[in-house]
Amino acid sequence: MTTQVKPSSRERLLEAAATLTYQGGVNIGIEALCKAAGVSKRSMYQLFESKDDLLTASLQERAAAFVAGLLPAADDGRSPRERILHVFEQVELQAGAPEFHGCRYLAVQIELKDQNHPASQVAHRIKAKLTSFFRSEAEQGGARDPDLTARQLMVVFDGASARAGIQADNLTGLVTPTAEALLDAAGIR
Amino acid sequence: MTTQVKPSSRERLLEAAATLTYQGGVNIGIEALCKAAGVSKRSMYQLFESKDDLLTASLQERAAAFVAGLLPAADDGRSPRERILHVFEQVELQAGAPEFHGCRYLAVQIELKDQNHPASQVAHRIKAKLTSFFRSEAEQGGARDPDLTARQLMVVFDGASARAGIQADNLTGLVTPTAEALLDAAGIR
Repeated sequence: MTTQVKPSSRERLLEAAATLTYQGGVNIGIEALCKAAGVSKRSMYQLFESKDDLLTASLQERAAAFVAGLLPAADDGRSPRERILHVFEQVELQAGAPEFHGCRYLAVQIELKDQNHPASQVAHRIKAKLTSFFRSEAEQGGARDPDLTARQLMVVFDGASARAGIQADNLTGLVTPTAEALLDAAGIR
Repeated sequence: MTTQVKPSSRERLLEAAATLTYQGGVNIGIEALCKAAGVSKRSMYQLFESKDDLLTASLQERAAAFVAGLLPAADDGRSPRERILHVFEQVELQAGAPEFHGCRYLAVQIELKDQNHPASQVAHRIKAKLTSFFRSEAEQGGARDPDLTARQLMVVFDGASARAGIQADNLTGLVTPTAEALLDAAGIR
């Protein structure tokens, strides 16, 4: 007999906030969030100070899965070039899923239009980890200008995710050659 | 004596919709739009069927200025490579303005999350003109795969605009070398 642990109200609210804001945007109402989570508004306000607080917590909670879904394992024996390309292979794979709507962190920052909002700041910090990974790998790969390479790869990451999210491009055969051209130009062989 | 033509209610509504949705997002209320335009709700509904209709018209109206602000003049005597790089120089210039929040058409598509929405379709068509420009110049410049080059340049365009819009990057010294690396890889000299 397996024991299934029922998700707590807090977990259900975090899940509802992550899912519904990803599908419908940050302007989703408190009522809809509580209804989807099966939690009363009173209970929600006992667990979170505000909808902004819930949104911020839900973005933070997805951070580990976001990073794990993109970055290669530490010290996997591959070259910096291969490790960087791994990220873009994941982007292409993820973009193929029907429920893909682009990078949730970019969407939140674009929708909130307030970079001082706690949720924007969480999004910014999580994406900064990706920039930092690119910079570190670029440096180890002998890039002429690791900062420039990291910025370029972030442009490709956000641009590709955004264009796939709005269904302007399916990314097939696109992101790997784009990243490769930039790595070639940077001298990362 | 100069004669100043007072903008019509329709023009003031289109201007308010363009400005307020760019600054605050597509969920701006009808009341706020009418107030900013100095037009009654009753008058608004005589001019536009709905807020969606007003939003769609305001995006359409900005299309010519968007294209003119990015693309070089037709037959300006420059090479395809220079003409493509012109677009990215404009992106870097525009991103330097304090009121820059990224590409309004990308933002609308990300915010609406419904690619069948009339406003999303207008945004899609306007961006498709930019893709078409890149494709045509890439072909004339002898690109190995003009479709791929056009898709890559759109990724850089949207990625750079988005990252500048959320203040993750100021684009200085970033977009031109990124586009150049892709043009080099494509064989567009």
